[in-house]
Amino acid sequence: MFELTALAKKTDNKKLQFLLLEVDYSELDSLFHPRSIAVIGASAELRGTFMLRILLEGGFEGRLYPVNRHGGEVLGIKAYTSVKDIPGALDYAFIHVPAQASIEIIRDCDAKGVRLATLFTAGFGESEADIGSNLEQELVRTARQSGVRLLGPNCMGIYHPAEHLSFATGLSAKSGPVGALCQSGGNSVHLVRAAIQRGISWSKVISYGNAADLNEADLMEYFAQDPETKVIIAYIEGAREGKRFFRALKAAAQAKPVIVFKGGQSEVGGAAAMCHTGSLSGSKEVWDSLAKQARAIQAYDIDECVDIALALLLVKSPSGRRAAVIGFGGGATVQAADDCSGTGLVLPPLPEEIKRELKKFTRLAGNIFRNPVDMSDIINIPPEMGHAVRVVGNWTGIDLLILHLGVEIGPYSLLDLNVLDALGETLIGAAKEVGKPAAIVAHSICCAEGYQKVFKLQQMCSEGGLPFYPSIRRAASAINKVIEYYETR
Amino acid sequence: MFELTALAKKTDNKKLQFLLLEVDYSELDSLFHPRSIAVIGASAELRGTFMLRILLEGGFEGRLYPVNRHGGEVLGIKAYTSVKDIPGALDYAFIHVPAQASIEIIRDCDAKGVRLATLFTAGFGESEADIGSNLEQELVRTARQSGVRLLGPNCMGIYHPAEHLSFATGLSAKSGPVGALCQSGGNSVHLVRAAIQRGISWSKVISYGNAADLNEADLMEYFAQDPETKVIIAYIEGAREGKRFFRALKAAAQAKPVIVFKGGQSEVGGAAAMCHTGSLSGSKEVWDSLAKQARAIQAYDIDECVDIALALLLVKSPSGRRAAVIGFGGGATVQAADDCSGTGLVLPPLPEEIKRELKKFTRLAGNIFRNPVDMSDIINIPPEMGHAVRVVGNWTGIDLLILHLGVEIGPYSLLDLNVLDALGETLIGAAKEVGKPAAIVAHSICCAEGYQKVFKLQQMCSEGGLPFYPSIRRAASAINKVIEYYETR
Repeated sequence: MFELTALAKKTDNKKLQFLLLEVDYSELDSLFHPRSIAVIGASAELRGTFMLRILLEGGFEGRLYPVNRHGGEVLGIKAYTSVKDIPGALDYAFIHVPAQASIEIIRDCDAKGVRLATLFTAGFGESEADIGSNLEQELVRTARQSGVRLLGPNCMGIYHPAEHLSFATGLSAKSGPVGALCQSGGNSVHLVRAAIQRGISWSKVISYGNAADLNEADLMEYFAQDPETKVIIAYIEGAREGKRFFRALKAAAQAKPVIVFKGGQSEVGGAAAMCHTGSLSGSKEVWDSLAKQARAIQAYDIDECVDIALALLLVKSPSGRRAAVIGFGGGATVQAADDCSGTGLVLPPLPEEIKRELKKFTRLAGNIFRNPVDMSDIINIPPEMGHAVRVVGNWTGIDLLILHLGVEIGPYSLLDLNVLDALGETLIGAAKEVGKPAAIVAHSICCAEGYQKVFKLQQMCSEGGLPFYPSIRRAASAINKVIEYYETR
Repeated sequence: MFELTALAKKTDNKKLQFLLLEVDYSELDSLFHPRSIAVIGASAELRGTFMLRILLEGGFEGRLYPVNRHGGEVLGIKAYTSVKDIPGALDYAFIHVPAQASIEIIRDCDAKGVRLATLFTAGFGESEADIGSNLEQELVRTARQSGVRLLGPNCMGIYHPAEHLSFATGLSAKSGPVGALCQSGGNSVHLVRAAIQRGISWSKVISYGNAADLNEADLMEYFAQDPETKVIIAYIEGAREGKRFFRALKAAAQAKPVIVFKGGQSEVGGAAAMCHTGSLSGSKEVWDSLAKQARAIQAYDIDECVDIALALLLVKSPSGRRAAVIGFGGGATVQAADDCSGTGLVLPPLPEEIKRELKKFTRLAGNIFRNPVDMSDIINIPPEMGHAVRVVGNWTGIDLLILHLGVEIGPYSLLDLNVLDALGETLIGAAKEVGKPAAIVAHSICCAEGYQKVFKLQQMCSEGGLPFYPSIRRAASAINKVIEYYETR
């Protein structure tokens, strides 16, 4: 997994003290460390058990209380008919009751001393009917009059691995350097899953939906100050407090890298965002300009958020953009050159002395010795490939390395699938030995075996701390965005 | 698989008679129907058996002769020491001997009456050493003085499923409407494999490498006239006969859709192309302008070639660009809107009467009834999803349908993986019933089970004749390019 040490230096909360931040970090942070949770609206039918199952499976170590107005049991645990009947203190409530019933539940939570409630239920400000907007206004009034802070409605709440607090099945309990605020519940889970798959661990992820109470500005201020979070990802459909959010974004981006993924940038997308989280989306041009001013890194979709976060964990400081690509296959090599050049990376041609070194152990024909370097001849000989990575990687003319394996290229498979595990291990080792930022790119074309092998290589990379990308274009684009980010600071 | 009938109408060879084409179609075509093949340079060691294995596995029904100067046997078949010793006629030779030996082999082939030779061997004009260029010049002189036409050097030759003639293992023996000329051997195999995976079958694919004799202009003229080929894909690194190729491209694009993928568009890519196939690449601007003038459809990479070919088989005639997207998940729906709008597709909002129809069997909350339509509530109920596709699809306000399944979205998986097979079947059936162009988009995020299910859905689509795309962005971009193509004709 990726190291925190180098990144940790970059979070400098002292800088933030001079900026006008409205939220009290410690107060907000204490909300995300609940010792007891009620799942309100839990029921014995499968659909009604989901959050309790997730919390149990995630290994939450505090107290868990299902609440159902008919009582009974959920997953073998006694259900209380009201939060007010729960014995002892209650910190956090996850609520999935029908929208109309939620106001009363918030009042009950207040009476019980609950400090934070996530309202999963939809059908508020995002719905077409006026009743939804009216209900949301009443909800906000109720919450504001009470001591309960609200996430949502229409959201998933909190993924906080250090607390074994999860919002989806199968998520890792390992903490890491990346944090996210995410307006879409589906996207928050998608983002977390896709990132874990690529070796990223999370500090915490907050899904906040319609942002009726806690909104994008509060959460951006929170993450800006959060020492556990070294990189912030924000998925935003619209801003409740535009000016304040922009200030928070600017402040956060001064303290640590911030990746912003704005959903609903098109007119139709904006309309969809209104239906989804009741968000007023704003024009693409305004967002682009604000993100640029704030020095946030913009991403187009979830995949690109993960790509850039990986690149930030790879390129940890200002760096040149001179890359060497080592791979195989003639057409693939030409494509690699176009992919890198198209994104802004520079591929300097190898000098004669490096070529001479390489020619000592490869044949001339079938190898392209410029850069990208086509190693077709020795691709199935891991020790020689390792040697090639060291020879090219140690050349002072380059700043970073991209190692490329297009599985199933060639009349049979030019790359012997049986060699791939050993080759992956060698490449990861050689790249680490070189010590420059390095990424591995691999993809299979068609067969199930190729896919499985690439999947395994991806796992080896994430365990070995080397970023894995499914295409050179995505790797080059993300790495170049990170280099640009450092250049403009 | 995809139907030829509608496309067949578009190939109008009469048009081509008025254009100045230099190749004699029938003469060239006869070269691609060999009845006997020699594999020259075949040997008993694993590497030396590959093409013989491919031809045997592909079920080539003519006569096969390994040739090795030491004689012996290859894969249990007697090897001749020279092509001249082979009894009976010999049509085609696949040559993988060292570059220096190839000139003599071509002379032998001429003496034997061979009409076409594919020179797999590299180390000619693409190599850095002068010896390579000199050798290529001598090779061309030798071939031109003889009766042997040449593919290559540095290429894979012919994939012609109707003749069970293959250039890689595991390729389908089913013929289809798409043909390709491909300057890279690796890319030709990659292209064929990736397309078969998506349900595309091929008329023939010619990998022609350095283009020392038969070149891009010859092959474009050939495919322009080929009645079996309804869609042409061309991967080109550089043109040997630029003006003639442009004329051929223009003529071909008048007769049928031509997708051009130009490798080496960047400066570094161009240098890589020079090392790969000895090609002079030309500037991106010149290529863009020529492709536009010729009304060819440009693709950025192999995946996009396949995406566009599928869209051509889907949208078979001029069509509007008003699409309806039916899927699930709020964030995914917003992204779908941005993806479609970004490429030029139009998503008209559903009118009240269609919404009323949909509301009869779905709940309001959690569904976005604009367009994209978010069917989260009924995603696991195939009959209702089928009904929704019919209701939306039959609306006269749209020209085409995109059905979207983001597997593993949601806190558990919103889409029950056990339902996916039945859901896929229902969606394919409903889309066909509607009768408008329709594509299915599906992707999994992380787990092996999700991947396998999506893989199966892709197979169901390819068998059911519905194009499958791994992302809405790719589907929308390809479909929009095809609509643009029809608009500019």
